[in-house]
Amino acid sequence: MLHLIKQLAIRNDTKIVLLVADGLGGLAIEPGGPTELEAAATPNLDALVAENVCGLSLPVAPGITPGSGPGHLGLFGYDPLEFTIGRGVLEALGIDFDLGPDDVAARGNFCTVDADGRITDRRAGRIATEIARGLVEKLRDVRIEGVKVFVEPVQDYRFVLVLRGQGLEAEIDDTDPGRTGEAPLAPTALTPGSERTAAILKEFVAQAADILKDDHPANMITLRGIAKRPPIPQMEEVYQLRSAAIAVYPMYRGLARLVGMRILDAGRTLDDQIAALRRHWEEADFFFVHYKYTDAAGEDGDFARKVTCIEEVDAQIAEIVKLGPDVLIVTGDHSTPAKLKSHSWHPVPVVLAAGSCRRDEATAFGEAQCLRGGLGQLEAKYLLPLALAHAGRLAKFGA
Amino acid sequence: MLHLIKQLAIRNDTKIVLLVADGLGGLAIEPGGPTELEAAATPNLDALVAENVCGLSLPVAPGITPGSGPGHLGLFGYDPLEFTIGRGVLEALGIDFDLGPDDVAARGNFCTVDADGRITDRRAGRIATEIARGLVEKLRDVRIEGVKVFVEPVQDYRFVLVLRGQGLEAEIDDTDPGRTGEAPLAPTALTPGSERTAAILKEFVAQAADILKDDHPANMITLRGIAKRPPIPQMEEVYQLRSAAIAVYPMYRGLARLVGMRILDAGRTLDDQIAALRRHWEEADFFFVHYKYTDAAGEDGDFARKVTCIEEVDAQIAEIVKLGPDVLIVTGDHSTPAKLKSHSWHPVPVVLAAGSCRRDEATAFGEAQCLRGGLGQLEAKYLLPLALAHAGRLAKFGA
Repeated sequence: MLHLIKQLAIRNDTKIVLLVADGLGGLAIEPGGPTELEAAATPNLDALVAENVCGLSLPVAPGITPGSGPGHLGLFGYDPLEFTIGRGVLEALGIDFDLGPDDVAARGNFCTVDADGRITDRRAGRIATEIARGLVEKLRDVRIEGVKVFVEPVQDYRFVLVLRGQGLEAEIDDTDPGRTGEAPLAPTALTPGSERTAAILKEFVAQAADILKDDHPANMITLRGIAKRPPIPQMEEVYQLRSAAIAVYPMYRGLARLVGMRILDAGRTLDDQIAALRRHWEEADFFFVHYKYTDAAGEDGDFARKVTCIEEVDAQIAEIVKLGPDVLIVTGDHSTPAKLKSHSWHPVPVVLAAGSCRRDEATAFGEAQCLRGGLGQLEAKYLLPLALAHAGRLAKFGA
Repeated sequence: MLHLIKQLAIRNDTKIVLLVADGLGGLAIEPGGPTELEAAATPNLDALVAENVCGLSLPVAPGITPGSGPGHLGLFGYDPLEFTIGRGVLEALGIDFDLGPDDVAARGNFCTVDADGRITDRRAGRIATEIARGLVEKLRDVRIEGVKVFVEPVQDYRFVLVLRGQGLEAEIDDTDPGRTGEAPLAPTALTPGSERTAAILKEFVAQAADILKDDHPANMITLRGIAKRPPIPQMEEVYQLRSAAIAVYPMYRGLARLVGMRILDAGRTLDDQIAALRRHWEEADFFFVHYKYTDAAGEDGDFARKVTCIEEVDAQIAEIVKLGPDVLIVTGDHSTPAKLKSHSWHPVPVVLAAGSCRRDEATAFGEAQCLRGGLGQLEAKYLLPLALAHAGRLAKFGA
């Protein structure tokens, strides 16, 4: 599909906006009750739905609950089963680390080991971020010949390790044994090509163990999700789109950077983000605007707060519409029902607004109405091709 | 997809029940009239639909009418286009033959040949099963060095041949020329690896011809659908499910055995089957309950009897619900409209009941209502992943 789109994509001066309310899809708390989106007062989104086309987006496949990585790759038009992002890479993206194409990234955990080197706490008593910062500072003293080593704090007991150098490969097993009572595993290469990198990681772990030996409870580390950036075709090359991301959270800026988007200064609030959209309107063809708090409220199991967050998104719709995008899509990267307090596999409401929409019967934005929408239930990866089509940016296939 | 599910599947103590009413989907006899399912009084199924989610299951793909093999493989979560079951294997499963992974099975037909060896009747005048039994008994005298030969009666002029031994391969053409006036074809290997097995089959046919030469009308045989068991990943390994089958008919037990289900004593009636479900409730995580008579009535073109059969299924739903399954799916492996007196390609109504369902507007179990159900129209192979998701048995994909 991506190959086909690349063949057909053409440039013009249309504008596409993709507004992602993270974790938008929900569930009723009481049987027969409304979902978060149905409970919210969303006059602007309802008007979009009434005049355009809606449906339900399947982030990956029926039953599959996506993380943020696959959820967004799908929305950016990439098959999330074909392009997968390692945890180390995602962790690096999550702290805005500018990962190079040849860098190897790992998620690090501080842990506690006993006198025999066996893990007694895989999270080192969940030490505070401030303490972890100090330990990360110490780990920056590690020196390994032939590579540049970056150690960056994340949150609590978590950090990111990045190796930069020539010929590094990342087919290497986790060192976290996954349970207490065992010593951390040695970094083990799964392919001959990764052996040198495994040896470098082994050296890193040895130096780290020495540096941390008198620190309690964080006297050791484990490494997980060792990975390189996947080779993803860039949006400009595939879609002929100058694309830009306006995201407050680093993880989503990182995901956008992976596919070649320009990162705009998003500010701190959705208001700031819409202002940035307005300010940069002439500078790109495709804008990805990411709103985090719907997901956060869902994860917290806070139905009412998620409703309020959705209403906050709705209030900005009119501002976006004023800019006159040729295509506007509003959806989520997955569902995060407050009822489940977690990401879920449920399809996500989506509305696509454009002059060339074939209208459906839906009159308001919500899960039940979207079920009867003109887009049907479709895989998220088809939304971007649809946007391109409505923007007049896809040539005819075949004669 | 199967590979992905295998990566994500986790164990817990939830229970999933898949109740298959064979050939469930139907058609209205008169334009505008009800289908069999719509005509049936199904208060229990209607209640399930009203409180949960329904849809239409595509056994294979639009327009494709499946046999029982692909129909059930789809419901067990396997792509029926990827995993195919040869006719010889299916015939062996249909008589409860415990086929080994290296056995080669063929469907045999008794036929009539003239003095020149040309077939005059491909079914030997449809001889009675009792007569065929006697002939099969004679064929058991065939001896071939290096292999064990099994010959088993099926019904009328049909029998099963199984070869057991080392290094057998089954890429071998049918010997039935498909029309009268021609001699049976010699078993011909399609690959070098199958040449030895083809030679063994040739020897079997030669000895059989000699044994049967004075029997009329069944004085010859043909062999079709020569095949081995496909290498199907087992359910426990892929889904982390202890699975069990409760099926009265051997074919369905055989299909269940192919994917690694434990076969429970089903008794003779649906009552017996539900009693078996209750009795073995603690012993498995996934139960496949197969009900045959909806399909049989459809094949007979007996609309009224199919309605009665559906009502018999409905009456047992309450008993299943009482057991408290975390996920209950009721569907068919394909449609068998009485109007067509045969399997058909029409999508099959499905209801999925679980605590994490997003409800739809459907209030009763039937083809028209399922068309508006929340599951949409989805390939049968996605039902099991959905069941796993609702049972909390699938981890998140990607971070």
